[in-house]
Amino acid sequence: MKSAMKLIENWFSERYSDNLQLSFRVMDQLLSVKTDFQRIDIFETYDFGKLMSIDGTVQLTERDEFVYHEMITMVPSAMFKGRPKKALIIGGGDGGTATQLLKLGFDHIVNVEIDGQVVEVSKKYFPEISKAFSDSRVRLLVEDGIKYVHNTDEKFDLVIIDSTDPVGPAEGLFNSNFYKDVRKLISNGGIVVTQSGSPFYQPKALALATSAMKAVFPNVATYTAFIPTYPSGFWSFTVASDAELKAADASWLPDGKYFNKEILEGCFRLPEFVKDLIKESK
Amino acid sequence: MKSAMKLIENWFSERYSDNLQLSFRVMDQLLSVKTDFQRIDIFETYDFGKLMSIDGTVQLTERDEFVYHEMITMVPSAMFKGRPKKALIIGGGDGGTATQLLKLGFDHIVNVEIDGQVVEVSKKYFPEISKAFSDSRVRLLVEDGIKYVHNTDEKFDLVIIDSTDPVGPAEGLFNSNFYKDVRKLISNGGIVVTQSGSPFYQPKALALATSAMKAVFPNVATYTAFIPTYPSGFWSFTVASDAELKAADASWLPDGKYFNKEILEGCFRLPEFVKDLIKESK
Repeated sequence: MKSAMKLIENWFSERYSDNLQLSFRVMDQLLSVKTDFQRIDIFETYDFGKLMSIDGTVQLTERDEFVYHEMITMVPSAMFKGRPKKALIIGGGDGGTATQLLKLGFDHIVNVEIDGQVVEVSKKYFPEISKAFSDSRVRLLVEDGIKYVHNTDEKFDLVIIDSTDPVGPAEGLFNSNFYKDVRKLISNGGIVVTQSGSPFYQPKALALATSAMKAVFPNVATYTAFIPTYPSGFWSFTVASDAELKAADASWLPDGKYFNKEILEGCFRLPEFVKDLIKESK
Repeated sequence: MKSAMKLIENWFSERYSDNLQLSFRVMDQLLSVKTDFQRIDIFETYDFGKLMSIDGTVQLTERDEFVYHEMITMVPSAMFKGRPKKALIIGGGDGGTATQLLKLGFDHIVNVEIDGQVVEVSKKYFPEISKAFSDSRVRLLVEDGIKYVHNTDEKFDLVIIDSTDPVGPAEGLFNSNFYKDVRKLISNGGIVVTQSGSPFYQPKALALATSAMKAVFPNVATYTAFIPTYPSGFWSFTVASDAELKAADASWLPDGKYFNKEILEGCFRLPEFVKDLIKESK
């Protein structure tokens, strides 16, 4: 009977390059929409629950989104001497980062997403992940994050760049002019963090992020996490600050499903080939 | 012209489950042979150089084998107070582990591989990786590793279980009876290490290895590495010893392309879901 089933199998494949792809068997495609900025697809997969891709690139799945969202929020949060309260998210239209920040006790979150349809789609298909958008502590702005950081007078403890890769709408986020503006709106001792791609398949994303941040901030550090549905399974994040970047006591911070205090110490210890990549980024 | 090319594209896919696969575009299939134990395939891929699969599972590629071979040899080596010299490898028919041990200065290596054809194929298609087999410090035995450890009187500093996953010929290696025999042949303070699968996709392999080792050794620890061509990109190794397991000075140990002293400290710091997996393994 299995061979009969195979005739009607459907797969979603993400091309990591012309020569490599990861494929998910899907029960159903729930949505495919072209917005003003990008194409959004939602699939119901067998192994990972619902999956959202943007321009053919997996953004999140129900099964493993916890790694990305814990690591982009909890690692920088653990570096504050006092407990951080105010955060700005650039991108993050799926709501996962804002929802995670609420769990950590942030009480004022501005989330600037350029593509309102990402938000709408997430509310419909990922209600748990996007639930922050119905919380009064979260202010959602559907506008260009680059313009927002240039024009706002607000100050934040933590700024999170939760963007797609540095092609398309996110390109301008991997740029020192952008970080100059970011620097003006983080409070004394504040921190900015960005996702910076797969060091293995996208070394340029990490190099670009590192260079852009080093041009503006005296302290820049890279950490990594394992995310099975992202290219190579190995992902980098880069943090920067005027203050020294090191783990604080942060006893208020709970363990997650991925994050814990051991990971906080371990995630900044980089393979030699990643250290080489960063060293080359001026 | 690109679409015309696509008509003759060939891909090798590894199925991680019925619902997930990673696919490599290949220039050519160089070999497909059914041995007494398993099927061996060799492909020339575009992104990863030559690739060997056994029973459809990627064993090594030229581009990323360094991670696995460094991490299975250098992490346990770094835990010896004196510099280790004698090693036993069970499996490892591609020669990568033995070749790496020679680089680290081991001067007596017994490599017991059950399938002589893995060795022959590796000598032909991966001459650099398998070059240890023509070195006089390496003694290759084509026989059953389980019987070998049961019968030998030799003693070793380091025993490396460099096996396929715990199905097929490697099944008996994830078993406490096997580790009872291993314990008899490691010198005082000696260490045994095994690959123990992807914590994400193969939690049973890690649980089995942990249980088998805990039944025999007082000290057992798990570490991880990122290996892009293995399922999920996130791989575990488990070490055990009668002696305390902790990083020694090991100033004799060079950095690799992946391994360095930071990674040595960081690789034992486990995500919370991996700690939970291990905790449940009695």
